[in-house]
Amino acid sequence: MEAAVGIIMGSTSDWETMKHACGILDELQVSYEKKVVSAHRTPDYMFEYAEDARNRGLKVIIAGAGGAAHLPGMVAAKTTLPVIGVPVQSKALNGMDSLLSIVQMPGGVPVATVAIGKAGAVNAGLLAAQILSITNQEIAEALETRREQTRKNVLESSDELV
Amino acid sequence: MEAAVGIIMGSTSDWETMKHACGILDELQVSYEKKVVSAHRTPDYMFEYAEDARNRGLKVIIAGAGGAAHLPGMVAAKTTLPVIGVPVQSKALNGMDSLLSIVQMPGGVPVATVAIGKAGAVNAGLLAAQILSITNQEIAEALETRREQTRKNVLESSDELV
Amino acid sequence: MEAAVGIIMGSTSDWETMKHACGILDELQVSYEKKVVSAHRTPDYMFEYAEDARNRGLKVIIAGAGGAAHLPGMVAAKTTLPVIGVPVQSKALNGMDSLLSIVQMPGGVPVATVAIGKAGAVNAGLLAAQILSITNQEIAEALETRREQTRKNVLESSDELV
Amino acid sequence: MEAAVGIIMGSTSDWETMKHACGILDELQVSYEKKVVSAHRTPDYMFEYAEDARNRGLKVIIAGAGGAAHLPGMVAAKTTLPVIGVPVQSKALNGMDSLLSIVQMPGGVPVATVAIGKAGAVNAGLLAAQILSITNQEIAEALETRREQTRKNVLESSDELV
Amino acid sequence: MEAAVGIIMGSTSDWETMKHACGILDELQVSYEKKVVSAHRTPDYMFEYAEDARNRGLKVIIAGAGGAAHLPGMVAAKTTLPVIGVPVQSKALNGMDSLLSIVQMPGGVPVATVAIGKAGAVNAGLLAAQILSITNQEIAEALETRREQTRKNVLESSDELV
Amino acid sequence: MEAAVGIIMGSTSDWETMKHACGILDELQVSYEKKVVSAHRTPDYMFEYAEDARNRGLKVIIAGAGGAAHLPGMVAAKTTLPVIGVPVQSKALNGMDSLLSIVQMPGGVPVATVAIGKAGAVNAGLLAAQILSITNQEIAEALETRREQTRKNVLESSDELV
Amino acid sequence: MEAAVGIIMGSTSDWETMKHACGILDELQVSYEKKVVSAHRTPDYMFEYAEDARNRGLKVIIAGAGGAAHLPGMVAAKTTLPVIGVPVQSKALNGMDSLLSIVQMPGGVPVATVAIGKAGAVNAGLLAAQILSITNQEIAEALETRREQTRKNVLESSDELV
Amino acid sequence: MEAAVGIIMGSTSDWETMKHACGILDELQVSYEKKVVSAHRTPDYMFEYAEDARNRGLKVIIAGAGGAAHLPGMVAAKTTLPVIGVPVQSKALNGMDSLLSIVQMPGGVPVATVAIGKAGAVNAGLLAAQILSITNQEIAEALETRREQTRKNVLESSDELV
Repeated sequence: MEAAVGIIMGSTSDWETMKHACGILDELQVSYEKKVVSAHRTPDYMFEYAEDARNRGLKVIIAGAGGAAHLPGMVAAKTTLPVIGVPVQSKALNGMDSLLSIVQMPGGVPVATVAIGKAGAVNAGLLAAQILSITNQEIAEALETRREQTRKNVLESSDELV
Repeated sequence: MEAAVGIIMGSTSDWETMKHACGILDELQVSYEKKVVSAHRTPDYMFEYAEDARNRGLKVIIAGAGGAAHLPGMVAAKTTLPVIGVPVQSKALNGMDSLLSIVQMPGGVPVATVAIGKAGAVNAGLLAAQILSITNQEIAEALETRREQTRKNVLESSDELV
Repeated sequence: MEAAVGIIMGSTSDWETMKHACGILDELQVSYEKKVVSAHRTPDYMFEYAEDARNRGLKVIIAGAGGAAHLPGMVAAKTTLPVIGVPVQSKALNGMDSLLSIVQMPGGVPVATVAIGKAGAVNAGLLAAQILSITNQEIAEALETRREQTRKNVLESSDELV
Repeated sequence: MEAAVGIIMGSTSDWETMKHACGILDELQVSYEKKVVSAHRTPDYMFEYAEDARNRGLKVIIAGAGGAAHLPGMVAAKTTLPVIGVPVQSKALNGMDSLLSIVQMPGGVPVATVAIGKAGAVNAGLLAAQILSITNQEIAEALETRREQTRKNVLESSDELV
Repeated sequence: MEAAVGIIMGSTSDWETMKHACGILDELQVSYEKKVVSAHRTPDYMFEYAEDARNRGLKVIIAGAGGAAHLPGMVAAKTTLPVIGVPVQSKALNGMDSLLSIVQMPGGVPVATVAIGKAGAVNAGLLAAQILSITNQEIAEALETRREQTRKNVLESSDELV
Repeated sequence: MEAAVGIIMGSTSDWETMKHACGILDELQVSYEKKVVSAHRTPDYMFEYAEDARNRGLKVIIAGAGGAAHLPGMVAAKTTLPVIGVPVQSKALNGMDSLLSIVQMPGGVPVATVAIGKAGAVNAGLLAAQILSITNQEIAEALETRREQTRKNVLESSDELV
Repeated sequence: MEAAVGIIMGSTSDWETMKHACGILDELQVSYEKKVVSAHRTPDYMFEYAEDARNRGLKVIIAGAGGAAHLPGMVAAKTTLPVIGVPVQSKALNGMDSLLSIVQMPGGVPVATVAIGKAGAVNAGLLAAQILSITNQEIAEALETRREQTRKNVLESSDELV
Repeated sequence: MEAAVGIIMGSTSDWETMKHACGILDELQVSYEKKVVSAHRTPDYMFEYAEDARNRGLKVIIAGAGGAAHLPGMVAAKTTLPVIGVPVQSKALNGMDSLLSIVQMPGGVPVATVAIGKAGAVNAGLLAAQILSITNQEIAEALETRREQTRKNVLESSDELV
């Protein structure tokens, strides 16, 4: 099956974070592919990937990177598909560098930035699904069902406060 | 015409920033509505707005707010449409508070966050259009045309470096 | 017995912090209730909770949350009871995001913000008691007694500096 | 008439900020007194002020200060009345120093901290009124009326977005 | 023997840091006393301590504290002896709150601030000795000897780079 | 004459900063070229520029950019010439975003980062000249002469302190 | 007359800040000299200045600098006199860079750091006087008189709050 | 063999970071020497080292330091060779202090700053090699080969994402 979402990351060390985006898409039955694409170490491949994305049928790209995180922004510069950027938590600066490098894009080339680390990766998967849900009723329903389940879990969890 | 994008902001003082999102959608001929919706001063109206959004035919919501900017995240909690958050530059902390309040959402409820201030508002408009472009060829072409024009402008601008 | 203080938190993972607020109220014999109420996962329940608070006899609400911590501010938007916000220490940004999301409220809807983490939770309990002490002599005396005991403990502790 | 709220500030230069707290109390018809009390330049007077506050009939103290803002915390150390701290925007660090000096109090001595600058001063006034409203029906109603008026103003303000 | 330096700290938990100031003074044979004096929990005792310091023969005060660290600044407000402030590393904000609360004193009441944590405590001891060395030849020589020894240690340490 | 240094910047708005790099190279008689090359708006041209740089005889590249400043790092990914990055002062975050986006490069692709703004642009010019001075005696001497002149200017400037 | 205090600064542009240190010493009748000494542009002169300071009769050195402010720390490395560091407010980072470069000295070489900007310069003058006051009764009295006058001014200033 | 690169660091504790610069130069067969040179503990030796560097045949200096990291900037003030500064990760502030102390140099004395910690040390080695590669074809080729190998490793690493 053709993938709807492309999940890329700058290094295998980002997998620990980015796998949570994959987990969400698995759960919601949204097709995706996952690859290591490095802005700094495979720049030409990154450009090819971004350039071919729409023609290959991808609809959303999720890009995770840390430190001077250029991957989401550079992919966004080479496609007009929506690109979601996940700031991976960096060692020294806790992901504040990743966040600013991803979110502070100049006018003209947006990156849809989510939170630093695991919560951001989870939300990147959900955001991709929400984007697809605009024209896909099944995904829209899966999202509503997930929300409802989450709501119930929270309501029941007060009992655990002891 | 039914609006595809809902642009909301916490206060009329955010208009100076958020009008740039409107300008982009005007340019790309994407229909939108614009309203003041305050998380803290009109919480019930905010919930209604978010709850009805999908049924009213909205496809993307752009929400701008500053300081303890709760509008984008709370709207996102009440709809599964994609919500784009624009951190408005705040007085004391230059929008760092707005940025963190919008982007650091917990896993489960994503907000697609863009840059602080005007560049962010421009990019919110573009991101909304890019999301719609997945299934709308006209918008996809308008975006490509805009990119190409921007490219040409940059290439010619080196002559101005004197 | 009717609770005077409502202690709410966005997730069971905040309990490790928020239990210190409960501990103080236990110590000072102030009645309270504790619940998980999530701004993003149970938004409607949050609004109901806040809306009913005064009628149910609550006098102060203590709300703890981390990251894009919207719970204290949104509860404050739905009640005119005093709301105390406890910034829970977040993973990546150490609670700086929690703090700014809670304290930087716009004019019109105050949140009484305390320190990040355990010290903040302790102080949230004490602040609630101090608020009640304005018209409750017993609590006022319990607070004075606690202060006096603390003072003595400090004075004696110099002997431990070896 | 005996004042219910004591508004103090470290220097006359804080008045430009703190007058907004007075404005709110005037609007809500809550009695208050205002004084310059400096933690560093009049430390003994500060202690006297705090020590006598409850006996003089004060119910809440609002203290504004900037930079290494010790006034709210030291007053809080000398009274068990609720103390609201307003971080005044400082020149070099935009009030981030004021905020951290006020909010990061150790367990045992809470300060109810509000936002940096004017919004914080407005909210300090409102928070004081909310605290008093627990046992004062008139103030409770005045607060509700103010909220309702604010709500209407926001709802009407969408027309100004042009 | 009468102490030349008073070393005070807000809590016994600061001892792990502040003992390094004591170690330096032991090494340089400068007399000192050490006590727990808390700005927030023993405010009156703090004032007495500061007020009596010059008369009791103290020449320099070293004060260590963390978080909203008011001890150095408040002691400095009550004496015209030089006061050295040591920002103790705090849990959530790593001592940035301690540093700003200590160093950003308003014009009129200086605190001689040193680095966060152990290095700062070491340097507080050295700075106290350097201040005394202005009129004490023995201490001046001890300081020079220490510097010379440190210099030699560094020069020899290149051999360890393997 | 073939240029030894390539000075590029993301936008004509960076010229106000980057002209100071040109001024230094003019002063030291080092040949250079200057162009607008945008990472996000002319990504292909940026790659060509970087790829051809060594063959065209360039020896050092100076790249200035602000916000999510990807230009220096992406150029560095496409050449093994030394690349100097100048963080241009951004509007909201004063260049802290530019600095972190440029300096926090992952192991493998270095960018020689200088200070934010004008001082950084001046130093980028000097650093390029210092790099060339390794094998160019004339430039080495010009640099020494400039240092000596600067030294004299400082020594004489004490007279201006009135 | 031989100067007791040496006031040095990295550039004439620091004079606007550092003149406030001179003003305090004039007021307290403490002798001083003032010079431009640049760590980076006159490094040898800086070392001579520091090395000779004690022999020339200086008792305290006040050093002001901005940005990567190395002057106070390097002077401190070359003398065992107490060195007071004044972080001058820098353009891009508001003096946060100056502050960290001055205060975060490694164990072994202390710099007595004061607040950023004018308040810091005022306090540098006062701190130098306080250090000298340990063995100089006249200065001790002048400091007490100044404190008393300041106290009176504050007490009277409440009348200005209108 | 005469060393082309001088690697210096402020303390043996920096070796854990700086050894990665050595590793790169070993790999690329660039000659180097390594020494502990402390700005604050061996200031005179630091000046000699910098002053003699060009005459001794050094072409690039790599200097690593943490906290108030003065070593790179002071060495840069005493030579016109290119100086690369590596901000070593500090304990309390995670290297943000090291970074700002190194990168925010005033106009006139550049330091080529790289990332905080290990990635920075790796890149310092690579940057030194890139500088030498301008006139050394062997090093230029070694760098290209390394890049190519890295590229291949990344391309193959997608298989590890499971």
